[in-house]
Amino acid sequence: MPFLDQITEPTLLLNETVARANIRRMADKAHRHHVTLRPHFKTHQSRQVGEWFKAEGITSITVSSVKMAQYFARHGWQNITIAFPLNRRQLPQLAELARQITLNLTVTSADDISFLREHLTEQVNVWVKADTGYGRTGIKTEDTAALDTVLHELAQTPQHPFLGFLAHAGHSYKARNKEAIVAIHQETLTKMRALKERYSGAWPGLQLSIGDTPSCSVTEDFSGMNEIRPGNFVFYDLMQNLISSCRLEDIAVAVACPVVALHPDRNEIILYGGSVHFSKDALPQADGGVIFGLVVPLTENGWGAPLSETALVSLSQEHGIVRTTPELFSQFEIGGLVGVLPVHSCLTADLMKGYLTLQGERLEHLSGINGF
Amino acid sequence: MPFLDQITEPTLLLNETVARANIRRMADKAHRHHVTLRPHFKTHQSRQVGEWFKAEGITSITVSSVKMAQYFARHGWQNITIAFPLNRRQLPQLAELARQITLNLTVTSADDISFLREHLTEQVNVWVKADTGYGRTGIKTEDTAALDTVLHELAQTPQHPFLGFLAHAGHSYKARNKEAIVAIHQETLTKMRALKERYSGAWPGLQLSIGDTPSCSVTEDFSGMNEIRPGNFVFYDLMQNLISSCRLEDIAVAVACPVVALHPDRNEIILYGGSVHFSKDALPQADGGVIFGLVVPLTENGWGAPLSETALVSLSQEHGIVRTTPELFSQFEIGGLVGVLPVHSCLTADLMKGYLTLQGERLEHLSGINGF
Repeated sequence: MPFLDQITEPTLLLNETVARANIRRMADKAHRHHVTLRPHFKTHQSRQVGEWFKAEGITSITVSSVKMAQYFARHGWQNITIAFPLNRRQLPQLAELARQITLNLTVTSADDISFLREHLTEQVNVWVKADTGYGRTGIKTEDTAALDTVLHELAQTPQHPFLGFLAHAGHSYKARNKEAIVAIHQETLTKMRALKERYSGAWPGLQLSIGDTPSCSVTEDFSGMNEIRPGNFVFYDLMQNLISSCRLEDIAVAVACPVVALHPDRNEIILYGGSVHFSKDALPQADGGVIFGLVVPLTENGWGAPLSETALVSLSQEHGIVRTTPELFSQFEIGGLVGVLPVHSCLTADLMKGYLTLQGERLEHLSGINGF
Repeated sequence: MPFLDQITEPTLLLNETVARANIRRMADKAHRHHVTLRPHFKTHQSRQVGEWFKAEGITSITVSSVKMAQYFARHGWQNITIAFPLNRRQLPQLAELARQITLNLTVTSADDISFLREHLTEQVNVWVKADTGYGRTGIKTEDTAALDTVLHELAQTPQHPFLGFLAHAGHSYKARNKEAIVAIHQETLTKMRALKERYSGAWPGLQLSIGDTPSCSVTEDFSGMNEIRPGNFVFYDLMQNLISSCRLEDIAVAVACPVVALHPDRNEIILYGGSVHFSKDALPQADGGVIFGLVVPLTENGWGAPLSETALVSLSQEHGIVRTTPELFSQFEIGGLVGVLPVHSCLTADLMKGYLTLQGERLEHLSGINGF
């Protein structure tokens, strides 16, 4: 078990076979539906994992920060959308990126567009952020007055071509079954197609970009859309499993944690693995409580199915507490390792700052790279 | 405003004057009560902040991982306690540290002691972790049978001297006023002193080590204790303010975040600043909701008092949503910066990976250092 022997402290294991299958499945779906898959790379933030996407023919990507755009541009990605509201304080960095690659920015107001027109000489392409019901940011698709103003501003900014409307139906994360996801997705499709109908006379090339992981995993209708931008699907996690976006066996990452103490009186196991490794994202339980992960046995081939009635129930900075049953308690030993499926793989990967594949290879994560 | 001009993305501001005052106050209290202050460095994890402690005469410290011990040993700290259950998988690293510095380990079982006796040649000192009611790990102070066994094992391990009992009354974090903290603290003192009474005949040099930030901030009785180990007090945060450990003006860190979008229809402001910057630790509110930070105006001297009825109410990976009042909304402008007081400074500092002082100096955090 060479990959297990390397482990002395909490380590993020990555099952390459599962991740590549997740990528291939989504790439196939996009192909089948004639939409471009522009995956969101904020989940993995790794140049090596990026290569697995290239192997499936992916050439354009999404990121959520200028830093991520710089990182992936450095590693050969030539077409990058920053799906985050324009951060005006990073204008010099955006200008530099725009000289290197095809850079697509996201704006949330007419004011953003006039700012770009007045301050950015280098050409960028512009997505207008549409709010289809999530309510985080963007212009509500019903607010045609605001949209008219934005497109009027864009018409005066030919140096920064208008690409179309970009939406993120993040409220799909609050769904708890496929029907709820499908309903949110259909509403998004309807609202986005209405935008196209309204504006495609003046803007015949106008594109529509959507794509959260739940909707892209569960649904099969993308009619009228030009591209999808799911991200989490490369690894999935317990939250996506709860939502019904994935099976437990589609989860491609697990945190290997040393067992450091046993408490047989309460069937609790203390792990070296806390909130600085997992994040504090929690999975609501039927009894009103929350858990921070499910426990899987580690094997020479990776990990097995979650142990029944066993979960990571509490986190402090470096400690995790696993609660199990009297029957399973004897499986744990001090000095041993257990795996934990994370609730939110994006945050866990960001905290863990790198990966160990089941073949013993170390892969980088942007958050572990100095000077970035 | 040179320190503000440097900021283009979420940046952890550190007010050195406030942090140094927090350190001095705790050092004075320890001196007054004739206990050693062995501060927990997991909160700041910074060699430069460590120097501020040295300036107050601190020579011995606490950490919660082998990695932190390696880092601070490299920066001249000669007496370090790892207040985390022995991680057997890091035995070679512990041996190397024990050759360099006075290393104090924490054990939670008799089995840990026989493991050290059989596998670790280099001398370490041993704290026995006592559970005074927190219930995370350690041996319950009432479980004299288990404690007898542990001390019997230690008697057979003269190469690893027994220091005494170490406890962390982490349940003080669940307190919501000074009286509750004092009650927990008094119970800890009583239980710890009982241990000393029971075992000091056989172990006359036996020491008692306690010290969470709430208890050490609020109480004035440390009779019978030898050392205190608070950590969070160097920065404090909103959680400590809620508990009544500190005033808002004692909080030494704030995250400066660019404003990237405005939603006047709902008095919401979108910040570049999300769960990868703040962590998901939340502060419960009277109405049953939670918040992730309070908003402070940034000035050339640092930051002001929190804006009333204004809070960070939602976080996604890179986005934060601030909700404010119609009156205060006009204070926010796209491209501007606001400060956010964090709920949990330890986790925020770990995520931010470094500091910017109000004098414009960059200070390091272990989590931002490559190769560690």
